[in-house]
Formats: sequence, structure tokens, C-alpha cells
Amino acid sequence: MIVGIIGATGYGGIELIHFLSGHPKVSEIVFSSTSFEGQKIEAIYPHLFGRISAVLLKAEDVINKADVVFSALPHGAGEPFAKLCMEQGKTFIDLSADFRFDDDNDTFAAWYGKGFVYPELRKYSVYGLPEMNREKIKAQAAKGPVILANPGCYPTSAALGLFPALRKSLLKEGAVVIVDSASGVTGAGREPTRTTHFPECADNMSPYKVGNHRHTPEISRNAEAMAGKPVPVIFTPHLAPMNRGILSTIYIPLCGEWKLPPASGCVRPPSEESDDLAKKIHQLYEDFYKDELFVRVLPFGNTAVTRNVRGSNYCDISIHLDHTGTTLIVISAIDNMVKGAAGQAVQNMNIIMGYEEGLGLEILPSLF
Amino acid sequence: MIVGIIGATGYGGIELIHFLSGHPKVSEIVFSSTSFEGQKIEAIYPHLFGRISAVLLKAEDVINKADVVFSALPHGAGEPFAKLCMEQGKTFIDLSADFRFDDDNDTFAAWYGKGFVYPELRKYSVYGLPEMNREKIKAQAAKGPVILANPGCYPTSAALGLFPALRKSLLKEGAVVIVDSASGVTGAGREPTRTTHFPECADNMSPYKVGNHRHTPEISRNAEAMAGKPVPVIFTPHLAPMNRGILSTIYIPLCGEWKLPPASGCVRPPSEESDDLAKKIHQLYEDFYKDELFVRVLPFGNTAVTRNVRGSNYCDISIHLDHTGTTLIVISAIDNMVKGAAGQAVQNMNIIMGYEEGLGLEILPSLF
Amino acid sequence: MIVGIIGATGYGGIELIHFLSGHPKVSEIVFSSTSFEGQKIEAIYPHLFGRISAVLLKAEDVINKADVVFSALPHGAGEPFAKLCMEQGKTFIDLSADFRFDDDNDTFAAWYGKGFVYPELRKYSVYGLPEMNREKIKAQAAKGPVILANPGCYPTSAALGLFPALRKSLLKEGAVVIVDSASGVTGAGREPTRTTHFPECADNMSPYKVGNHRHTPEISRNAEAMAGKPVPVIFTPHLAPMNRGILSTIYIPLCGEWKLPPASGCVRPPSEESDDLAKKIHQLYEDFYKDELFVRVLPFGNTAVTRNVRGSNYCDISIHLDHTGTTLIVISAIDNMVKGAAGQAVQNMNIIMGYEEGLGLEILPSLF
Amino acid sequence: MIVGIIGATGYGGIELIHFLSGHPKVSEIVFSSTSFEGQKIEAIYPHLFGRISAVLLKAEDVINKADVVFSALPHGAGEPFAKLCMEQGKTFIDLSADFRFDDDNDTFAAWYGKGFVYPELRKYSVYGLPEMNREKIKAQAAKGPVILANPGCYPTSAALGLFPALRKSLLKEGAVVIVDSASGVTGAGREPTRTTHFPECADNMSPYKVGNHRHTPEISRNAEAMAGKPVPVIFTPHLAPMNRGILSTIYIPLCGEWKLPPASGCVRPPSEESDDLAKKIHQLYEDFYKDELFVRVLPFGNTAVTRNVRGSNYCDISIHLDHTGTTLIVISAIDNMVKGAAGQAVQNMNIIMGYEEGLGLEILPSLF
Repeated sequence: MIVGIIGATGYGGIELIHFLSGHPKVSEIVFSSTSFEGQKIEAIYPHLFGRISAVLLKAEDVINKADVVFSALPHGAGEPFAKLCMEQGKTFIDLSADFRFDDDNDTFAAWYGKGFVYPELRKYSVYGLPEMNREKIKAQAAKGPVILANPGCYPTSAALGLFPALRKSLLKEGAVVIVDSASGVTGAGREPTRTTHFPECADNMSPYKVGNHRHTPEISRNAEAMAGKPVPVIFTPHLAPMNRGILSTIYIPLCGEWKLPPASGCVRPPSEESDDLAKKIHQLYEDFYKDELFVRVLPFGNTAVTRNVRGSNYCDISIHLDHTGTTLIVISAIDNMVKGAAGQAVQNMNIIMGYEEGLGLEILPSLF
Repeated sequence: MIVGIIGATGYGGIELIHFLSGHPKVSEIVFSSTSFEGQKIEAIYPHLFGRISAVLLKAEDVINKADVVFSALPHGAGEPFAKLCMEQGKTFIDLSADFRFDDDNDTFAAWYGKGFVYPELRKYSVYGLPEMNREKIKAQAAKGPVILANPGCYPTSAALGLFPALRKSLLKEGAVVIVDSASGVTGAGREPTRTTHFPECADNMSPYKVGNHRHTPEISRNAEAMAGKPVPVIFTPHLAPMNRGILSTIYIPLCGEWKLPPASGCVRPPSEESDDLAKKIHQLYEDFYKDELFVRVLPFGNTAVTRNVRGSNYCDISIHLDHTGTTLIVISAIDNMVKGAAGQAVQNMNIIMGYEEGLGLEILPSLF
Repeated sequence: MIVGIIGATGYGGIELIHFLSGHPKVSEIVFSSTSFEGQKIEAIYPHLFGRISAVLLKAEDVINKADVVFSALPHGAGEPFAKLCMEQGKTFIDLSADFRFDDDNDTFAAWYGKGFVYPELRKYSVYGLPEMNREKIKAQAAKGPVILANPGCYPTSAALGLFPALRKSLLKEGAVVIVDSASGVTGAGREPTRTTHFPECADNMSPYKVGNHRHTPEISRNAEAMAGKPVPVIFTPHLAPMNRGILSTIYIPLCGEWKLPPASGCVRPPSEESDDLAKKIHQLYEDFYKDELFVRVLPFGNTAVTRNVRGSNYCDISIHLDHTGTTLIVISAIDNMVKGAAGQAVQNMNIIMGYEEGLGLEILPSLF
Repeated sequence: MIVGIIGATGYGGIELIHFLSGHPKVSEIVFSSTSFEGQKIEAIYPHLFGRISAVLLKAEDVINKADVVFSALPHGAGEPFAKLCMEQGKTFIDLSADFRFDDDNDTFAAWYGKGFVYPELRKYSVYGLPEMNREKIKAQAAKGPVILANPGCYPTSAALGLFPALRKSLLKEGAVVIVDSASGVTGAGREPTRTTHFPECADNMSPYKVGNHRHTPEISRNAEAMAGKPVPVIFTPHLAPMNRGILSTIYIPLCGEWKLPPASGCVRPPSEESDDLAKKIHQLYEDFYKDELFVRVLPFGNTAVTRNVRGSNYCDISIHLDHTGTTLIVISAIDNMVKGAAGQAVQNMNIIMGYEEGLGLEILPSLF
């Protein structure tokens, strides 16, 4: 199978090349880049020297040659190519946000600054969080070519941490869910900026777009789909001085049956009682994800960290209870470039094509 | 004035030397170390070579020689020396948690594993967060020698972010406050561990003691003192791959008059209405801290980051409103080794001794 | 094929697991660890959770079960197991220095503190730098079980940079070669120390064992083998604040025909003349390595950096001429854990077993 | 005294502000910036918020107001302002390379791309490496206003490591000196580039301008001045993933009386004989620098590292002998932004103004 990547010279594109070049079903990769058309990709990315020597084409040529097309273009740039793919009957796997909101043009327009270009394309699109939408993805693929909206990095990390608690109704009625996340700097992409300038980025924790990052509505949509009703979500992203990884610390206020009776005073140390409750919720998470290839609910007592998923498609999840026994704290760790981008895109391709879901994604996490 | 430092060879001690060696009222510094008694400190810390050449003494000898004594000993080790200081009428400034809980032996024992050794010493002690307790510290100093309980690093960052909101009753009745913090690795101290081993610490975000870190009761005590009633607090610390700094992201659910009317749907982009409310709260914070030397409420629209306080005694605070208009998000940034430890200790010494509060702490933050 | 790893819980062992778990000829991996015998490896290294669940055995049991045995034990610990392997007719691939000096017990003893335990084992051993010794390795394998001495990380980086210049007699008679190297911290292994403690390791360049690191005699031996005569070598290692990679900057004084005529004055900017000479040497390097799978001589004008080989078995080499035209400067970059350890060990296994040399080592470098 | 800084918004300017704001003789600092004229500096650098609130002026206005003028402009931009200062009789301390070559316009033009604009200004200029040129600087100041050419960061680190060996004739006749240096990323300045983009800069060692960096002629000039004859120098800079510091590893081939007799074989472990020689050279360095405030020759057996000079004006030097006993290896560590730029500039100001040389530079190194 020939796969195409349009917008191949951004970091998302580069990570797609990393995984697709080792995928057993992929015989050839063709690329495009607006900025570097006509150049060899190894001239732009010398780590590929001697290995990936093809010339960067026009996007249209990539689509013509490829059996499946990945798009790593910025938001708002890919719709014409999605259209072209649909006309040619070729699956279009989109790493941007353009198709993540189904037909909710209003929300997309409010947060991304402009509305859909071809609203009618949404009949082909499906939101590609496999753990939540695997059957929908398959159903869409059964009907014909798919526009696969690959989830955002933060939303993936948030959704996988929230899913069991929301689906199993642990959340207190009306309560606000808080997702506090830290991301590696690769998430900011390839373009140098003051924010990503080493001297001002190293040895620094830097929150940004506090209270209004545009991944918020995506997280919120997923939460609603999981809970079966609207769920207010607050999301705060931080830039951490590291390259890879997203760590989300998720606060889920618990409803009556799932929380401890009120303590006297506001602070109490961990107790046997609180441990029992935490273990019960841990068991629920373990059961919920027991058949998922890429979600690892860590043994009780462990804590998820980004180091342990580095370079892999895993989402590690750990379960903790606040000392007051009223709030579930879920830690969710992914590699932002893998499960948060290219790896999940390949996972989605596998599902669409009917391959084994983990094909080409077998690599172990790299400790360092 | 001769100042003494007992437990001088830990990181807290080293940072005290950094600030005290440039303090205009300090004529001499004497040190002790149990582990390195009899050695020159420059042999253990070669960055001090040629500058700080004194020999490490016994703690008792330090106390005999010094006019003011700082203790950078671990929790549970310093009470005998505090006692000795009180007997000699010398102020004892303690960087450990031993005296942070006034006479609440139960809470201290529950979270720190053992109770007070000399409960009667608490009549000399005062909790040294100057912005909250300046008058108390002065009052204690007016009575005689003081045991100054220097606040924990996380609690300092949390308290300064919470203070205006709690004192001015912005918090929704019964609501839980969440403090989500990331700390630099110096906070873990001088002893090498697996957690602080470079290969497993670099490029990694790592939450720890989730839901039950022992700074929780200290944060909670401060919150109660500020609000005038118990405030449930959840606190989650993270280790970030950087050396200096604590960044706390603080979620404060707002009460009726301070929040926006409910929106239709769970997600809405920022609006003029939400901006107005955010600015009003910002103004409240600015007014609250207008006379504080070391708290900088950043101009509206800015975001606090650890980089901008590096090496200085500042706490930078920025004010944000959640997109739903129901939750205040305060970002608070300090240098964990300065305002979170040695700098605040010097600030407290200045208050006790009647010096200008910022003496010896004039250094500008270092951008990198 | 079943492969065994003894001393599996050090960083070398962990990286072997990373590559061997994806090797198409490997059906099973068995491990041993003295420190953690009886425990599951995923309990010690949670990044392996759910993937590598086998229990750590005794070394003898590993040898009994395995078809090929890798040893990631410290220097001086593996000889008895090498002996056992020879008795059982099984190849022993040793990441330590024990067999790197053939029968030169004196040099080994002088630099490693004790002599050979079983000198007679050296009849089975071969130094496993494939680019230099491929035919020797094959010849040894044709005779029976092999003890493969996998080269040190610094010596690999130095040797590959030096090989064409020394073999082709570019070095000035009697001149000293200087190898100035910087290594990532993983090279220091798994045990936490003050040197590798994040707060003192981050943001720091730290030379160590200046003038007398024990990789010096190994580098020197290789140089002699390449040049056909003794070559004085000075080697200086540095610890750099990064996890992976060795960057060697190698200074090779050129002999008459290869250098520029003396300039007037000591300094001259680059000229067409010096460019021509540099290109000629570049061409020599390119030709020399044209059939090597894992050595990439970069296009003229490029500079080798560790980033571009991260996670891969490549050695990147770039060619530069000093401004005076008298000294060749070769930059050589490897991943210390891959071409500098586990990857090269797998490459050697492939050669010994008659597999394609790059089997299991196809992964592209990871840009970040 | 009012000091002015033109080009204040680059990193050199910012670091000047850091030191000058605490200098006891400085009553006011005035700034200029071409890019940000009319803005407050705290708006561009929020770490200065609340402390340095002045508005950025035109360079001419700064010169009019100031008693002493520092220039942190790029190479080639400052000559007109130097001229203006000379006309007004005000000292001009220049952090650029414009005045580092005395009247050698040819060398400057060959390496910096254009010649002097006002050659006649060189009669006012002096190269400001205090340890080498203190008396020259004083002499120039005695004559009237000075143009002080503050040395480059790499050249400072190289010169201080070379000075005793060259002045005392340890260098082998005709031999090449090699300076292999690694710098923190702040040395690359404030403008974001691909090279300084965190994802491609972190965890990477990257040599650049190998064999032809333009600090080479400056290093070479200093070496000639020290040795009293031309000394061929090879200089290789590397970018290391850290913020502050330059570490230079300097190889000095020793002449007859200073080296060991040839060994049999090319490699020998350290011996008593080589230790004695190393100690003798160490003593020579210690004696040479015994009156220098900012050069610390470390006790024999120690190794200089950048960590131990961080934030301070020190140059740490350690002395090592190659295992063959033929080459002196000097390690020299400075903070590139302090002794390598702003700190040395303040030191020069102190000398020119007749203040104590260390005034305003008393700060201890910061371990982290």
C-alpha cells in the first residue's frame, strides 16, 4: 500500500514518517510540502539522510499516487484535499481540528476563527478516538472512504482519563471536571518562537491560554458523549521544559455512592477506608480498559509519568483519591507525538483498513 | 551581626549562604553540619571555593557564636536546637515543618510521623508568611526571642495565590479549592535518588504523593486562616524537569456575586462579559497586594511563569477566569529556593530584627 | 531463537530488550539480574508494564535456556558466564570491557584494576567493531562459539571517525590524535550519584577523568590496528546535560601531501584552496564507508550532531578542515546506547548468526 | 553615576542591567533599543516588572544622559555611537567585536565581513581582558575617554586558560594549540532560530562553524600577545543543551623541559612521575593568578565545570596532564553571560573609573 502525507515537513508529518516507514503494510510513502516542494526531505531533516530520500511533491500529486492520505496541515488548510480524497474514494486521515466537531460549525467557528469550507464533507467524517469510537470508525469505513478526524493531543489524554468515570456515572451531578495538563515542547510545532526559544523555555514552567485553550470544546464534546449529558470542563495547558509527553492531572468530583462520608475537619491523612474506595475505582478502570491494546491502567499504588510511555502509543493511567475522599484524581500520560498524534493516526488507519489495530505500533516505550 | 546556619550543607543551607553572604547587616556566617563536621564547606561545595572557607562546626558551637540562627535541618531534627536558642535568647528561623502547626500536635503527628518533642516551645513560635502574618511576627519579636516557622515551598506559592480570594470571600460556600503545582528538582534536596537521577528525571513530568502530600494540611491551615472558616483543599505536586521554581495553578470556584450567570451549553469562548469580571478580580488582587514588596500581580493579560522570578524573592501572580465564568484560575510562580525557602527566611529575619524587609534581597530575577 | 540477557536491569540490558523485543529472529527473551532475581522486570522498569512480564532468573538458568547470550554485567563480572557459554557452545556477546584487549592482560590490568580470570577464553574472543573487524568476526563464528567483545561507547565513536584517515595514512608521522568527546548521562548507568543528580547535572558541562579515562587504551589499540603502527591518542570525556548521544570532535594532524602549504600568519579565513582539500578528504571518507549500512558520511558542508542519530544505530560523520589547513577535524556522532552499546551488540549478533546485518535495527533516528 | 546601555534588549543588555542595577556607584540606568524604542523594558522582559520601568530611548539620548555608555549592539553597528561618546568625552564599553582588533582592519574585515567605519577611533580603544591588559586599560583611562573592547565569551575562556602556559613558555615550539569549547544557548542571543528551537536544541550536542568560527582570530591574537610570538590555534565551538556557561578544554603540547620522557608504547596509566609534573604546572598556574580576583585555579585533583561559576564573574581553571605526559590539558569554565560578557564589562568599568575591581560583582556562584 502506498501512503501519502501532505504537510509532511511539520513535526506531525515527521513522526508519521517514523511510524509509517516501519509499517509492514506500507510499501511506499509519498510526501508533499508547500514550503519545500521539490526538495528532498532529507535535506530539510538530516536525521533522515540516506533513508528517506524522496522529493517533496504537490499535495495533489500525493493524493493521486497514494492509497491512503494523511494530512498534517495546520487547521483550516486541509478541507480541499479532504474533498479531493473523497472524490477519489481515498481515506483521508486528518491530524488537524477541521473535522473534529462533526456538523457543529458554530463551535468550530467560535474557537478556530472560521467556519467549515465544505460542510457537506462531514457526512464522511468520524472522530477517531478508537477507545470511544472504534465501532463508528468501522461502520464509516464499511460505507466507503472515510475522513478520519484524529483527536488533539490534550483531548486524547483527557478523554482516556475521563472515559470510565463518566461512562460509569461516578461524576457528581453538575460538578465541574478539571483537566490540568503539561505538554512537551514538540507540541508547539516546528516554527521557532520566543516561547520555544531554548533560553526562555528551558528551566521554566509556563501555563498558556489559561481558561480558554481551543482544545477545551473538544474535551467537552468527548465528555458529553461519554457521560450522556453535558459536563462542564475546565482545561489548563502548561508548557514544560521537555520534548515529548503530555501529563494530565484530572479532578473528578465523585457522586454520593462513590465518595467517602464527610470527615470532621478539612484534612485527613489516607486511611484504610479511602484506600478501599480508591481500589474499587481502580478495579473499575482496569475492567473498563481490559481489552484495550494501548491503554495501560497501572497497578494500584503506581503513578503514571510521561517517561514510561515515551516513543510509544500507550496511554498510561493511574488512579488516586483525594485525601478528603470526595474527588477522584486520574493521572493520564501519553507521548504527545504518538498517541497524541501520529501513532493514533496509524492506529486509526489500521482500523479503517481492517488490519490488526497495533500493526506498526509495537515499539516498546523508551525509558530515556 | 553574626548569623549561624545549622544543617548548612543541604540545598536550603547553601541558598541561605548565597543570600546571607551579601546581606549588609551580616558580618560573619558560621555553619554546622552533622555529616561534614570539621571540613571546609568549599571542599563539599566547590562553587564556594575561595569565598566561603570556614570550617563546619557542631550545631551547639554555631548557636553559641551566632546572634541569629537559621536551621536547614530535616523535619524532626531541630527542636533541641530551637530550645537551646530560646534559652540563650536567640531567634531561631526554621526551614523545616516542625513549628508550622502552632500547637496542633495531632495534625503534625498524623502527617509527619511523630509528634512534638518540646510542645512548650510553641509559645515562642510564629508562622512566617510575612504577607499574612507580618504583624504577628513583629508582635512575637517584641516579646523576646522568636521561633520562626518558615513556610513550605508549595504552601507559600498556594497561600499567596489564594489569599485575596479567600479573605475577600470570593470562594463558593463549601466548594473545594484545587492547587495543582509543579516544582523544580532542587526541591527534592541534595541526596541523589532514582527520582532525581538525570536520565529518569529529564524530559519527564512526574506527579507524586497524589492526594496526600504532607504540605496539604499546611495549605489547608493557611486557607482556613485566610477565609475565617475551614476550606477543603486538594493539592497535587508534580516534579518538572527543571532546577528552580514552583508554578501553582489554583482553581477557586466563585460564589454568586463573583461569577457569570450560567451559559447555555458547557463551553463558551471568552467574551467581553467574562473579561470584565476577570478584570474586576484582577483589580481586587492588585489592590490587595499593592504594598507588598515581593508579590507582583502581573498586568491583566499576562501569565505568571517560573522563569520570571528565578533567583529572586518574588511571587508572581496572574489572574484568569475559566471560560464558563464560574472558576477563578490563579497562577502563582515563585523560586522554590528563594521565596519558597531561603529568601523568605531572610525576609523573616529582616522583619524580626527591624531591618527593611527587602534588605539583602534586592537581586533582580535572572531571566535564565 | 531464544536470546538471554544477563545483567538485564542496567541501562545496557534495558536497551537490549528494546531492540531484541522487535527482532524478527527472536522468539523469546530470558533475563537475569543479581539484584532483582525472582522479580518481574516490569516491576523494576514500569515502562515495560504489560509487555515484558517475565521473571528475572539466575544467570546460569538464562544461559541454559538461551541460544545466544548477551551480558550487560559490569567489567570484571562476566568471565565465569563466558566460560559457561563456551562450554555449552553458545555465543556470548559482552558489553563490558573484559574481552576488548585480546590477550593483552597487562594493559587490561593496568587500566581496569585486575587481570583476566580465564586468560584461555581469549582464544574465542573477537573485538566487535563490525566496520573494522567484520571478517574476523565471521571467521571466529565459523570456528565455533564466539565471545564477542562489544566495543565501548566512546571507542566506537572515536574509531569510526578515525578509521579512513588512519588506514589511508593521512596522519602526520608521530603526531598526536586528540579525541574530545561529550556523552549523554545514560552512559553513567542506572545508579544515582551526585554527578548524575539532576540539580547538579542539568545546565552543566563537566569533563571527567581528564587525561586518563580507561577508554583511552581501547581507542589507542583501535588506532594502532587501523594505522598499522602505534598512534598516540589523547582522549577527554565530558558529561553533557542530555540523555542520549556521544559527540566526538577528533583532531588529526595531516601529513605533507594532505595539508595546505603554510600560511603567512597563524590565522586565515577559509579559502577555495582549503575547501578543495576538505572536499578531497570528504570524498575519501565517503568512498571508504560507501558499503557500510550504519555509517553515514554527511554531505560536505553538513555537521554531525547527536540529535540526528537518536535512537538509531547510525554513526554520523562530518569532515572539516582547520582554518590553517594542517589539521583534519572529524565530527562523529552516535547514540551511546545504540551504536555505542545495545544496537552494535545486535549488529554483531546478526553477523555471527549469518543474518542480514541490519535486522532488527531498521528504526529511523528520532528527531526528538 | 548614570550609566547608559544601548542595544539594551538583547541578552547582553539584559545581563548588564542585572549587574548594574545592583552596583553601588550606579544611581540610574538609561537604555536604548532600536526595535523597542518608546516602550518600557518591563513590557518586553516581564522578569523586570515592577523594578526596571524606564522607557527605551534613542541611542543618542542615552549617550547624552549617561556618564558611561555600554553598547550591547551587534557587530558593526556601534561605531557611530563610539564616535559620539569620544566627542562627548564619555567612556564607551563595547560588547561587540568592533574594537577587539586594534588597528588590524584586515583581519577584522576578513572575519567579520566589513572593515572599520572610523579607523581613527582605534586610538582610544583598548582590549579589555583585565588579567592581561589591566595596566593598558588604566593607562588609556588616564589619557581620557576610553573605548573598551570587551572580549568575546570564547576568547575570554580560552585566554585565561592559556595565559600562564604561554607567558611562561611551556608550549612546544611550532605546536598547535587546540581549544575545544562548549557554550550554553544564551550565547546565541535573543532571536529564536531553528538551532535554538527547544525541540531541536535540547538533548543535543552540536558543533558549529567547525574550523572557522570568527572568535578564532581573537583567540589567536591573545595567544600571540601572551607568547610573544605567533601561536597557531584551532578552535571548535559546540552548542550544549544548557543555558549558561562556557567550558573550554585546551590542549597545549609541552616543550622539552616540561614534558615527560617518551614512554614505551602509546598508552600508559597515570604515574607518580606524571603527577609530579602536573603538580608543578598546577603550582605555576596558582602562582601566576594568585592576585587575580576572578580567576580561581582549583586545588590539584579538582576539575572545572560550568556549574560552579554560574551567575558569577569567576573563571575556574583546572590543570591536567595527558597520560602520555606530552600535553597539558587545561579546563577553563566561565559563565558566558558574566565573565564572558556583562560581568567582565562591569569589571572593566570599575578599572576605568578607578573603583575597586570587584565592585558590584560580589555575588557568589549559584550552584543551580
